[in-house]
Amino acid sequence: MIIVIQCSDQVGLVATVSNVLAKNIINIISMREHVDTASKRFFLRVETEGAANTVSLLPQLKEVLPANANIQINPIPEKKIIVLVTKEYHCLSDILIRNHFKTLRAAVQCVIGNHASLQDICQRFDIPFHLTSHENVSKESFESDLLGLIQKYTADYLVLAKFMRILSPTFVTHFPMRIINIHHSFLPAFAGANPYRQAYERGVKLIGATAHFVTDLLDEGPIIAQQIIPVNHSFTPTDMMRAGKEIETSVLAKALHLVFEDRILVYGNRTVVFE
Amino acid sequence: MIIVIQCSDQVGLVATVSNVLAKNIINIISMREHVDTASKRFFLRVETEGAANTVSLLPQLKEVLPANANIQINPIPEKKIIVLVTKEYHCLSDILIRNHFKTLRAAVQCVIGNHASLQDICQRFDIPFHLTSHENVSKESFESDLLGLIQKYTADYLVLAKFMRILSPTFVTHFPMRIINIHHSFLPAFAGANPYRQAYERGVKLIGATAHFVTDLLDEGPIIAQQIIPVNHSFTPTDMMRAGKEIETSVLAKALHLVFEDRILVYGNRTVVFE
Amino acid sequence: MIIVIQCSDQVGLVATVSNVLAKNIINIISMREHVDTASKRFFLRVETEGAANTVSLLPQLKEVLPANANIQINPIPEKKIIVLVTKEYHCLSDILIRNHFKTLRAAVQCVIGNHASLQDICQRFDIPFHLTSHENVSKESFESDLLGLIQKYTADYLVLAKFMRILSPTFVTHFPMRIINIHHSFLPAFAGANPYRQAYERGVKLIGATAHFVTDLLDEGPIIAQQIIPVNHSFTPTDMMRAGKEIETSVLAKALHLVFEDRILVYGNRTVVFE
Amino acid sequence: MIIVIQCSDQVGLVATVSNVLAKNIINIISMREHVDTASKRFFLRVETEGAANTVSLLPQLKEVLPANANIQINPIPEKKIIVLVTKEYHCLSDILIRNHFKTLRAAVQCVIGNHASLQDICQRFDIPFHLTSHENVSKESFESDLLGLIQKYTADYLVLAKFMRILSPTFVTHFPMRIINIHHSFLPAFAGANPYRQAYERGVKLIGATAHFVTDLLDEGPIIAQQIIPVNHSFTPTDMMRAGKEIETSVLAKALHLVFEDRILVYGNRTVVFE
Repeated sequence: MIIVIQCSDQVGLVATVSNVLAKNIINIISMREHVDTASKRFFLRVETEGAANTVSLLPQLKEVLPANANIQINPIPEKKIIVLVTKEYHCLSDILIRNHFKTLRAAVQCVIGNHASLQDICQRFDIPFHLTSHENVSKESFESDLLGLIQKYTADYLVLAKFMRILSPTFVTHFPMRIINIHHSFLPAFAGANPYRQAYERGVKLIGATAHFVTDLLDEGPIIAQQIIPVNHSFTPTDMMRAGKEIETSVLAKALHLVFEDRILVYGNRTVVFE
Repeated sequence: MIIVIQCSDQVGLVATVSNVLAKNIINIISMREHVDTASKRFFLRVETEGAANTVSLLPQLKEVLPANANIQINPIPEKKIIVLVTKEYHCLSDILIRNHFKTLRAAVQCVIGNHASLQDICQRFDIPFHLTSHENVSKESFESDLLGLIQKYTADYLVLAKFMRILSPTFVTHFPMRIINIHHSFLPAFAGANPYRQAYERGVKLIGATAHFVTDLLDEGPIIAQQIIPVNHSFTPTDMMRAGKEIETSVLAKALHLVFEDRILVYGNRTVVFE
Repeated sequence: MIIVIQCSDQVGLVATVSNVLAKNIINIISMREHVDTASKRFFLRVETEGAANTVSLLPQLKEVLPANANIQINPIPEKKIIVLVTKEYHCLSDILIRNHFKTLRAAVQCVIGNHASLQDICQRFDIPFHLTSHENVSKESFESDLLGLIQKYTADYLVLAKFMRILSPTFVTHFPMRIINIHHSFLPAFAGANPYRQAYERGVKLIGATAHFVTDLLDEGPIIAQQIIPVNHSFTPTDMMRAGKEIETSVLAKALHLVFEDRILVYGNRTVVFE
Repeated sequence: MIIVIQCSDQVGLVATVSNVLAKNIINIISMREHVDTASKRFFLRVETEGAANTVSLLPQLKEVLPANANIQINPIPEKKIIVLVTKEYHCLSDILIRNHFKTLRAAVQCVIGNHASLQDICQRFDIPFHLTSHENVSKESFESDLLGLIQKYTADYLVLAKFMRILSPTFVTHFPMRIINIHHSFLPAFAGANPYRQAYERGVKLIGATAHFVTDLLDEGPIIAQQIIPVNHSFTPTDMMRAGKEIETSVLAKALHLVFEDRILVYGNRTVVFE
């Protein structure tokens, strides 16, 4: 069982929570705690042995924690996700492989693409693929189609695995902190289009990738994970793109792992990551 | 104040400790906890606001924790250290600079060298330097001289900053888990002499450095920190040595930082690092 | 076209080669050169624009280079490979994905497994899978079966993608510097069996993976690529294994990329890597 | 001897240069070559054995290379540098230590500070320190004082080792590609003031440092080297600053090493780095 708590800080919160657990004879396997001293905010993630009677635990915790406390008690089953893609195969394939071999910690419900290119790979893994083209339709209409498709499934998260359309604030509002994107740069450097071309022009010596939650501000949402790799003068923009795909895959995989294990707590535009 | 506790695990230990703190109106700034499930061993580091009446806190904690608990309550003043060196300047200089600018989190009491080469740099920083040659004397006599010198000072730790003599088990016994060494390889690869030559011969693509506590088994003590840097075919053993010095300096600095902030708990031949 | 040359060093070799190319109006895109000063050995990799009349170029180069020169002139088509596996899916899946999307720089001819576990994933990608069990047969017989299968195909390289059987020197002799293995440790640390358990016992703070050519000495062949990732006290051997799989996949992918682009020159037990 | 050439590309340039060297019986130790195919620009760095009669070599190379060729033939003595600082000690101390132990590959002529804080450390190393305050004087007057001081010495490079004043384009014009700065962020992210505060607000998971040549556009000059280190939610802006100092020191050291060994060729706003 995983318990995630976020509330205003006060003396004795750890004692309060651990007392409730001890009283219920629940053994703590790992406990990670953080206090943001600037905002006086308290964050806690507790992983416990075995399952527990969640029904009775939640009211017990509510009773002793501050009224503003956000308390989640999750069993450790897998999350359900929908993956959105365009044409690039690398992030999707990695997700499909992990999903197929049951190491994703989530179950892919379906893949939605605005191009047909990745239909074949989905079929090879028996994962439903839905084509929803953005061409010759308004953005509203496109997003309405998307939404319709998504609502046919139950999904905890939408994963944008190199989905190259910008989602409108209206669309994003439906899934607050539930859309995860991989951006192909070390944000905030090179936000927006063509980050590898931008990186090439600037002559940087490292390129990066950033996994973040999507908010209504483009490439401005809370960052989950970032990585970089070295590049040098011999890299063309195409070489950078090729090298970048390796870390895009790897950063997205890491971010999903963290999110699916309830290790990410969002506060304002920042994340607490209990790795 | 920093509280470090190590004992056998049982349900409710975090609650137990945090209750004691809450009762004493001590606010927790950060708490890091680890349970080694294989050995059922519990590790805790708590950093609290302000100082506290240590005299009364220790018995309170002893009363409620298992009888075998190792409890340390440290104020946050700086540790005292003695540095042992031979001829290489890089690790010592880094320590002297940090010591001079008060960012070492420890105070260098003196430097002891078995060569005179580094006397000058110590003098430039007004740090006492003692020459104790290993030449023309038995190991017993050399170590007895060392010990005599060390005992003139009060020191929490001995830091071997590229001290190229192997200390006898007898000597080491005087300072259990209080001698920190920097070994110029990624242990356990290339233990013993000439690790860069060994690395060159093997054609490795990464070289490393390891900071560890010294035990009576050569290069076998608990590891505190390790780092690597890439090398390639163009590196001669000398190039490797030169590149290696950079990470030796950096790994030792990191390890000292961790030790001096009471972030390292040793158990058997392994360390818990609350970074 | 890629030209790879290895010979004893002498003044003017770069001029010699580049003169031949200039005379044939062949434009150099990139040239990487290395002299091992200790062994007075010269290594060169030249990538040129367009194809060339290899038939006439080779004798021209032979005429002007030392008699002992090893000269390879490769067009830039893809290599052919056979992949050997046991049960773990991560390295094989990565190879199959890259093969499927034509970014492997090689074509997988078939996969041979000593367990049936990975047959399904091969079938999903329309890659022939051959089961050759090592059970209830002598090592000689097992390797003879392997060899028989391999010889039905044309292959430049055998890739051991977590193939958990040790190949005999006799077998290896058939494929000198043509078998690539991924070892799940930072060699030479933790050679042999159970490297993650060994790493756990030793309490290391980094774990690694090593891609190397297979020779008749176990885990002793020339190293192609190595990488590490940080671990800490909270990692069980199982956690290390899981984390290690990520770099095993990534190191093997990198090594294959280098080998398939003729960027690896072997000399003695070391490699020159023209990255 | 180190020969550095930059010119428009054409077939046979490597042959041309290496023929001249062979004719003069000069042995090549290492040769690094790069063609920027987009701009059809050729870059070459050759390190040779022994010294040579430079006087006769330069005209020989000029004769056979394109008229626009930029040719430098440098013996391998050390460069001369002047270091500019404000209050922070870490980069300067590292330079002073390497200078003192003769591993900087350059000789520090003097240090100029706009605060007196670092006078003491310079004196400890017998390096002249000049205080030139920016307070109560116009920028023109301040820079004129600076220039006056600098011109009393002979210096190949000015190193801004955490010099916190922005130099005017007029000043920079005096030292084209001869001023090296360390910026405390992963440029182009967080250019300008307070990068660690900016990084904290954005919630990034990596922070960086960038060494670059100074041009008349703030933080926009050609990048020499960059590095990053991971940070997390537990880092305050002050913690980031403290952690950042470690990589600032290390990136600047690396950049200086590369520049002082003539391994950096600048073209437009980008650098070719023959590492």
